[in-house]
Amino acid sequence: MVAQVEFWFEFASTYSYPAAHAVEAAAVARGVEVKWRSFLLGPIFAAQGWSDSPFNIYPAKGRYMWRDLARICAAQGLPLKKASQFPRGGLLAARIACRFANEPWVGEFVRRVYSANFADDADISSPFVIGKVLADMGQVPAPILQAAQAQETKDAFRAQAERAVQLGIIGAPSFVVDGEVFWGGDRLTQALDWACGKRDAVAL
Amino acid sequence: MVAQVEFWFEFASTYSYPAAHAVEAAAVARGVEVKWRSFLLGPIFAAQGWSDSPFNIYPAKGRYMWRDLARICAAQGLPLKKASQFPRGGLLAARIACRFANEPWVGEFVRRVYSANFADDADISSPFVIGKVLADMGQVPAPILQAAQAQETKDAFRAQAERAVQLGIIGAPSFVVDGEVFWGGDRLTQALDWACGKRDAVAL
Repeated sequence: MVAQVEFWFEFASTYSYPAAHAVEAAAVARGVEVKWRSFLLGPIFAAQGWSDSPFNIYPAKGRYMWRDLARICAAQGLPLKKASQFPRGGLLAARIACRFANEPWVGEFVRRVYSANFADDADISSPFVIGKVLADMGQVPAPILQAAQAQETKDAFRAQAERAVQLGIIGAPSFVVDGEVFWGGDRLTQALDWACGKRDAVAL
Repeated sequence: MVAQVEFWFEFASTYSYPAAHAVEAAAVARGVEVKWRSFLLGPIFAAQGWSDSPFNIYPAKGRYMWRDLARICAAQGLPLKKASQFPRGGLLAARIACRFANEPWVGEFVRRVYSANFADDADISSPFVIGKVLADMGQVPAPILQAAQAQETKDAFRAQAERAVQLGIIGAPSFVVDGEVFWGGDRLTQALDWACGKRDAVAL
């Protein structure tokens, strides 16, 4: 059996942008397969009493995050433009990523949507923007956009988002290996170590 | 001039425990000098509307943190016992670390206080516990404990804690290099890179 890492991401999440661009190459280099798992932070934040991104609720935290993100993107050679709207609704793209999670193009789709949001400052909640992302990849947008709105896609995505809560996921991005949760793009190497069986004896 | 990294820590902070044990060896290996900067998270959290540790306010976050901490400590070979009281008041130890920040024994003191809290589950708010830490290091506790309560120490520590806010520090541990803030023990390497002049062009 091939070792796997689940990559849990929310398209509105800033830190998920560089992580989404890094995860597949890093995993493949270790012989680990990536399972793409879109979800929404909204319900998880709401359970903590937040009706907005904590980066907006706590301005000092927001200032730090944008600077930290800029450093991370610079180190990865990724362009970054501070989004004129934050957070942006990622529901449509998240449903597509859920419905087509096993298609060979899903990784590229995820990366392109993140780049649209955080490099091009495009409104990823718009079907036109997502349609253009798909077309630029050589996909035919209409049937994909339609499938995203099908009831079974909505149900499947809702179930996936509920699984995030059950796993104990509290933020994005998160990596999950055999139920073990690693929160933050900076945990990628640890998660891959875990996937490859390199696990220290953990006390708690 | 020797490159420097400021290590900003709060004795109640769980993630500061493995970072405090790692920072000096890692810095010395890169030719970087550590400046020890104790502060308190209480006022910073209060400014965000929190009257307790966010790990207590948000149980899912707390559960994740203890597990994550256990993995980090396991990887560093550090013992960890879930503290029976969390957070513990670190004011006394923080004042000592501030007053004696330039003494050659300050690093060892900081590490031993963290181990008392998170490996031995000892009440570090107690002068007896801190006195024993000092005695175990070969220091004479009484004059040090007395100096910690002197008005000029209290004033100096208050000024240092205010500087943390001015720097934009939002959590512990944080590393600061030339005013650039790196939050989280997992940012140690980045901070040392910055101290050594390895700085990517940052967009924001």
